[in-house]
Amino acid sequence: MSTVDTGGKEIFSRRESEARSYCRSFDAVFTKASGSVLTDRDGRDYIDFLAGCSSLNYGHNDPDMKSALVDYITADGVTHGLDMFTEAKAAFLEAFERNILEPRGMDHKVMMTGPTGANAVEAAIKLARKITGRRNVIAFTNGFHGMTMGALALTGNAGKRGGAGGSTLADVTHMPYEGAMDGAIDTLAQIEWMLDNPSSGIDAPAAFIVEPVQGEGGLNAASKEWMQGIARIAKDRGALLIVDDIQAGCGRTGTYFSTEAFDIEPDMITQAKSFSGMGLPFAALLIKREHDIWKPAEHNGTFRGNNHAFVTARVAIEKFWSDESFAKDVNRKGERLGQRLGEIAGLVPGAKLKGRGMMQGLDVGSGELAAAICATCFKNGLIIETSGAHDEVVKVLAPLTTSDALMDKGLDILEAAVREHTAATRIAAE
Amino acid sequence: MSTVDTGGKEIFSRRESEARSYCRSFDAVFTKASGSVLTDRDGRDYIDFLAGCSSLNYGHNDPDMKSALVDYITADGVTHGLDMFTEAKAAFLEAFERNILEPRGMDHKVMMTGPTGANAVEAAIKLARKITGRRNVIAFTNGFHGMTMGALALTGNAGKRGGAGGSTLADVTHMPYEGAMDGAIDTLAQIEWMLDNPSSGIDAPAAFIVEPVQGEGGLNAASKEWMQGIARIAKDRGALLIVDDIQAGCGRTGTYFSTEAFDIEPDMITQAKSFSGMGLPFAALLIKREHDIWKPAEHNGTFRGNNHAFVTARVAIEKFWSDESFAKDVNRKGERLGQRLGEIAGLVPGAKLKGRGMMQGLDVGSGELAAAICATCFKNGLIIETSGAHDEVVKVLAPLTTSDALMDKGLDILEAAVREHTAATRIAAE
Amino acid sequence: MSTVDTGGKEIFSRRESEARSYCRSFDAVFTKASGSVLTDRDGRDYIDFLAGCSSLNYGHNDPDMKSALVDYITADGVTHGLDMFTEAKAAFLEAFERNILEPRGMDHKVMMTGPTGANAVEAAIKLARKITGRRNVIAFTNGFHGMTMGALALTGNAGKRGGAGGSTLADVTHMPYEGAMDGAIDTLAQIEWMLDNPSSGIDAPAAFIVEPVQGEGGLNAASKEWMQGIARIAKDRGALLIVDDIQAGCGRTGTYFSTEAFDIEPDMITQAKSFSGMGLPFAALLIKREHDIWKPAEHNGTFRGNNHAFVTARVAIEKFWSDESFAKDVNRKGERLGQRLGEIAGLVPGAKLKGRGMMQGLDVGSGELAAAICATCFKNGLIIETSGAHDEVVKVLAPLTTSDALMDKGLDILEAAVREHTAATRIAAE
Amino acid sequence: MSTVDTGGKEIFSRRESEARSYCRSFDAVFTKASGSVLTDRDGRDYIDFLAGCSSLNYGHNDPDMKSALVDYITADGVTHGLDMFTEAKAAFLEAFERNILEPRGMDHKVMMTGPTGANAVEAAIKLARKITGRRNVIAFTNGFHGMTMGALALTGNAGKRGGAGGSTLADVTHMPYEGAMDGAIDTLAQIEWMLDNPSSGIDAPAAFIVEPVQGEGGLNAASKEWMQGIARIAKDRGALLIVDDIQAGCGRTGTYFSTEAFDIEPDMITQAKSFSGMGLPFAALLIKREHDIWKPAEHNGTFRGNNHAFVTARVAIEKFWSDESFAKDVNRKGERLGQRLGEIAGLVPGAKLKGRGMMQGLDVGSGELAAAICATCFKNGLIIETSGAHDEVVKVLAPLTTSDALMDKGLDILEAAVREHTAATRIAAE
Repeated sequence: MSTVDTGGKEIFSRRESEARSYCRSFDAVFTKASGSVLTDRDGRDYIDFLAGCSSLNYGHNDPDMKSALVDYITADGVTHGLDMFTEAKAAFLEAFERNILEPRGMDHKVMMTGPTGANAVEAAIKLARKITGRRNVIAFTNGFHGMTMGALALTGNAGKRGGAGGSTLADVTHMPYEGAMDGAIDTLAQIEWMLDNPSSGIDAPAAFIVEPVQGEGGLNAASKEWMQGIARIAKDRGALLIVDDIQAGCGRTGTYFSTEAFDIEPDMITQAKSFSGMGLPFAALLIKREHDIWKPAEHNGTFRGNNHAFVTARVAIEKFWSDESFAKDVNRKGERLGQRLGEIAGLVPGAKLKGRGMMQGLDVGSGELAAAICATCFKNGLIIETSGAHDEVVKVLAPLTTSDALMDKGLDILEAAVREHTAATRIAAE
Repeated sequence: MSTVDTGGKEIFSRRESEARSYCRSFDAVFTKASGSVLTDRDGRDYIDFLAGCSSLNYGHNDPDMKSALVDYITADGVTHGLDMFTEAKAAFLEAFERNILEPRGMDHKVMMTGPTGANAVEAAIKLARKITGRRNVIAFTNGFHGMTMGALALTGNAGKRGGAGGSTLADVTHMPYEGAMDGAIDTLAQIEWMLDNPSSGIDAPAAFIVEPVQGEGGLNAASKEWMQGIARIAKDRGALLIVDDIQAGCGRTGTYFSTEAFDIEPDMITQAKSFSGMGLPFAALLIKREHDIWKPAEHNGTFRGNNHAFVTARVAIEKFWSDESFAKDVNRKGERLGQRLGEIAGLVPGAKLKGRGMMQGLDVGSGELAAAICATCFKNGLIIETSGAHDEVVKVLAPLTTSDALMDKGLDILEAAVREHTAATRIAAE
Repeated sequence: MSTVDTGGKEIFSRRESEARSYCRSFDAVFTKASGSVLTDRDGRDYIDFLAGCSSLNYGHNDPDMKSALVDYITADGVTHGLDMFTEAKAAFLEAFERNILEPRGMDHKVMMTGPTGANAVEAAIKLARKITGRRNVIAFTNGFHGMTMGALALTGNAGKRGGAGGSTLADVTHMPYEGAMDGAIDTLAQIEWMLDNPSSGIDAPAAFIVEPVQGEGGLNAASKEWMQGIARIAKDRGALLIVDDIQAGCGRTGTYFSTEAFDIEPDMITQAKSFSGMGLPFAALLIKREHDIWKPAEHNGTFRGNNHAFVTARVAIEKFWSDESFAKDVNRKGERLGQRLGEIAGLVPGAKLKGRGMMQGLDVGSGELAAAICATCFKNGLIIETSGAHDEVVKVLAPLTTSDALMDKGLDILEAAVREHTAATRIAAE
Repeated sequence: MSTVDTGGKEIFSRRESEARSYCRSFDAVFTKASGSVLTDRDGRDYIDFLAGCSSLNYGHNDPDMKSALVDYITADGVTHGLDMFTEAKAAFLEAFERNILEPRGMDHKVMMTGPTGANAVEAAIKLARKITGRRNVIAFTNGFHGMTMGALALTGNAGKRGGAGGSTLADVTHMPYEGAMDGAIDTLAQIEWMLDNPSSGIDAPAAFIVEPVQGEGGLNAASKEWMQGIARIAKDRGALLIVDDIQAGCGRTGTYFSTEAFDIEPDMITQAKSFSGMGLPFAALLIKREHDIWKPAEHNGTFRGNNHAFVTARVAIEKFWSDESFAKDVNRKGERLGQRLGEIAGLVPGAKLKGRGMMQGLDVGSGELAAAICATCFKNGLIIETSGAHDEVVKVLAPLTTSDALMDKGLDILEAAVREHTAATRIAAE
């Protein structure tokens, strides 16, 4: 690549907007990445327990995806074709149909939205409103759905909402997610009561949008019963169920969709992050056939249908989802992770294990402690981030393909950091 | 790539959402693309006068970009790194600073937004509202800024707006663009009068957002005087000037930014479409240094900072913008195009030449006629689209790198189609 | 008055809008009214247990108010003077200050809003937003605050909201009122949890607006503890407390303001309905001195300051509120009413006593039953209405001046109606 | 009335909200009013050229209205009856039907809204949205429709809008009123162009709401051609025409409705201000029969149907509108007024005559000059106010019943004040 002398990191502070964020915690300059390891300019390796916030479920630069993509580019495969038909798109759709939809008895259409999760979310709520003629969408506390105005209205985070500079964030009702108030309330009963009370002030909803596991919100994992409850409440009231599976989908919880064990039928499912397999920008909205009432171009976008992503996504699907071996391995790894995290949790008074599958973490009770732990991890060669309303959850989002050995090595670094900071706390408390 | 037999096009009708659009006009299945030519599954070539709606200003699969990208991938360059520092990003930023910003005396910061134009637009209006503490944004008739809720509120097109299904599209005032009502009104004077009248009902604006050439709106090209007028009106009233250069930028009009000849200083400039050089999803918001008041992550996104795009964008900038030769050639081509289109316009009673530079087209007076012309072109091997409020403008958006010979060939096909359909009209009228 | 032959009721169906409502339940044509009795064109008397929905707390046509008003009119007292100073206004303000504000240690300013409760509510939320720079207002389930857009956004009732025809009802969060879900949730704890969770999606509130007893919402009466909780939650978070005392104020619950026993200090209190004493259109907003940051005419209105109402309101205040005798009598009557209603409740399986003071009623479990009871009452000479989300509460809102004898007579009619319809139900059930 | 010693004006500054306004310009304490004269506490008389902003078209305390009202009160006529049938309402409706609707060939229903103009406006736009299923309402520059959120969104005045404290004012498009930009634009053509351009960003309107003469906006009087144009534009596009006749109606321009000479058929007409005849709070919405699709109570309000106002309104209608003599006299007076104001205009360089009928005034070019003139008038016994976006118009709104002698006397005071201040200006300029 470039032979220019990029010197230090001054170019970033000089030219990149203050909005930049992850680079502030992980301030190396990275050059290479492979599997679960990132390498910086000085040749230092870092185990990646962030994985592009679950965009790299199959690891960095999977060799088969790389190879297919290089071949495609070399052969002058169409790179950009708006939403025109390409062979790469056909191959992707057929692989997705055969390996994902058909085995799960799903008859959803695939809408190629702009290549961001937020765009898929925006398309979903627009469509739900078109279908139902209603405007209100029920979103949940601690939910995160994106930063564009429609998606941001659904997002709970006050800091993110504040970024809107006072723009109107309308047409959304925020309801408590399962476990709100430490479980002191029956959230399903309350939602139902609010919707059934014709004087509650809650307008009849077009849709519910829900993350089965709230990635940014603190790894809150909804139970089967709760998700079934939401599905039933929505259906009974003529509202659509939109599952936002952007962070929890593509195998992260042990099944391709994070709701497969829940016996529910989402009307729409958003896909992004790991959808391309290799971390390329790519998103889609899966829509039950009967709901696909879009007129041509009614929602469009220049980069919908990223052909490079079609190529890698097809490889990802064929490689990891043509039989059950990958899913089984992810489940095994998830159990291993939970066990180990459970042990580490024992080191922090009041700490709680959060999440499920390969999307688990530790609620250590305070954002300060969580930040300190992550900073120490980074110093010791592990990239790991926090989440939660108070950034109080240390979140493990390692690639699903991470080897047991590397997983253990990363968790060792995490455990050491936890020990260091809880010891510090203990001493401070004495 | 895939060896599966993709059969016909059934997979698309079976699985791709009804929102798909361009593929309805150009219903071949494309496999390869190079320079200004797309090739379909049957080996048939098509001259591309659409160029991904100006996303392929440097043509399909430029060999230098391809080569750099293949090298990068082969060497396990970081593909996805959220917004962490990478060498590819540093190299891109340095190239952009050295070749684009510095020679133009610009001190803007680069905000890596989500990789869609709409996302850059959303970031721009959020930031303008944060800076000014005002909510109203002035957008223009026939403007197109994207399909997410914030961008859609700025977009004039009724069909697109209808896709919102009744969502609230607030905080925007739509004002007449230059030339509205066939020039019967002094739009600057009117905008100024509305803003200066404290009883006009138009709230003090946070920003004006304007496309110097309205790509989707019908190739309406603002004059220097008008753009200066808007810049002055904005400044005088404490509003920011956001230039949406997504379609007209990256050289399309003969200079890197479409406003370079206008002697104005936009507070923010959106970049997308051809920004990556090769058609990869990539967008950014350029922000005057003093306006970069974002807090970290206040606007974020999983795919901001597409490293593959950093690689190709760097090549594009270094290859085409390190001296003035490319710009000069684009200007020459634009003049040639204008001349030839002017001649073709003579064939259609009442037809008008629209646009500027390599972003010109013919207003043929009716959407039906324009559609018929484009359909005939496609039959004859030319991909060309319409734009405008009534789809009445046949729009030439050929790659800027198109050879004169290929340009002529494409224009010959266009001329023949125009002759065929205007003859038909003439006969019908007799 | 008019000597024209008004014939039957055809004029109303011919000329009055379909929006008319109470006249559908009580379809006599009334001519006279005195104390607690209305008389129709045929000379038939009706006991009035509706009292203009609590607008006639001192009964119809109180002789002292009448006399003062007739004198005022006869002497050419100013009828309409916009918001200019009049002697009538001065006298009213002095009486209000001396008899209402000072004895209660209140230093509120009196804002003469347009003469409807909704207008006072609109003024309150506008002012709260001005003061705090925040937009969100917390309103409660089953709350009713009026039918203009700002007030309607605060109102829970779906039918009323539907009347907005799809207008945007923004900037409000509806939270559960005390007792929601039959008391299964700790509403204060939940509100606090939602506001303290920075990822709840609930924006920091400008104000809470609350009815101490929800008149239209079904006579839900907040406890002292709950109101203190709301006051504390508001104060701790920099939000204002707006008490909507339009229906429950002016003595209805046994004290002039319905919150006097609660030891809270509302930032604003709305006044309307019985505020004029005689049922004339009149409303005001009481504002803590430090919050009165209005600029002149920033909220105005043609009929703010109804001089006829100043005259009668002054009489009402001086006659009923210069000492404690009236309040004591209302309390006595309220207890009597509660006792009697409690007995009647015993006749209906599952019936519940609702409300407090002279604002009590029976939740009979279904809107059909409640409607049937009220219809029978009307046939037997008693005007009484329902309220509640399902119109399931038979609401007693007799004038506070109703004699014990007339009260008993009315309650006898009610009891008989209840017996008749519950017997019918019993028979039907057998 | 009250025998309390009201002392000076301290009670007002001590207790009345800072929102008070007219009393700041006219700071006497008024006690009595008759015809066109107000009398203050010290016995000083003031000619009233403000007339409650056109709420007192028939003068203060018309003897016949007074007498009817006193009789009604004395006889215990129903004062407050919610929207129940009363004989007073029947008599009013019959008089209105016979004298107003039938002679004009109108078949409108009468909706008794809350007793403020704003409430009638809110009802109108809610109904228009219900009928059309559209949300956007076209309002005009310099329009004033009230201060509640729905009405305020329609109102142009920035100061009033600012009073909303940042509340969302949505669903309205503000278009230029006739004469905008000193007539430099063809406003009808522009409105039509904006609505016919499917990419203008202006959503299809539910309604147009227009004041035939803009009272607060500066006495801008629409021409017959313009009003017909608006009516046609609305009809052609399926939008309703709402005439806001609150200030210009009830005879102010020489006919009962201000649009009678225009040969248009408004779908709805708002009535308030002088509707009661005597300045009592009273408002209504006239609705074409086919549009009266309200469900019972879908828009309601405690004080809709003010029975005292029914009594006086009936007298007003029968006394002034049973034949054409009053209208003829108003026209004659209007011409006289125009002539005299024209002469006075000659004293002020650049001054313009504004308005029509008995709703005329002088645009003196600056708010400072207009305020100075009005202040001098008040000092000399004349109450007169300004209007306009810059308060630059001295507005004559004398009762329509003002005698020629008193009219002349008032105009003499006005002329003297104009002379005084323009002389001062002249001297200052020298």
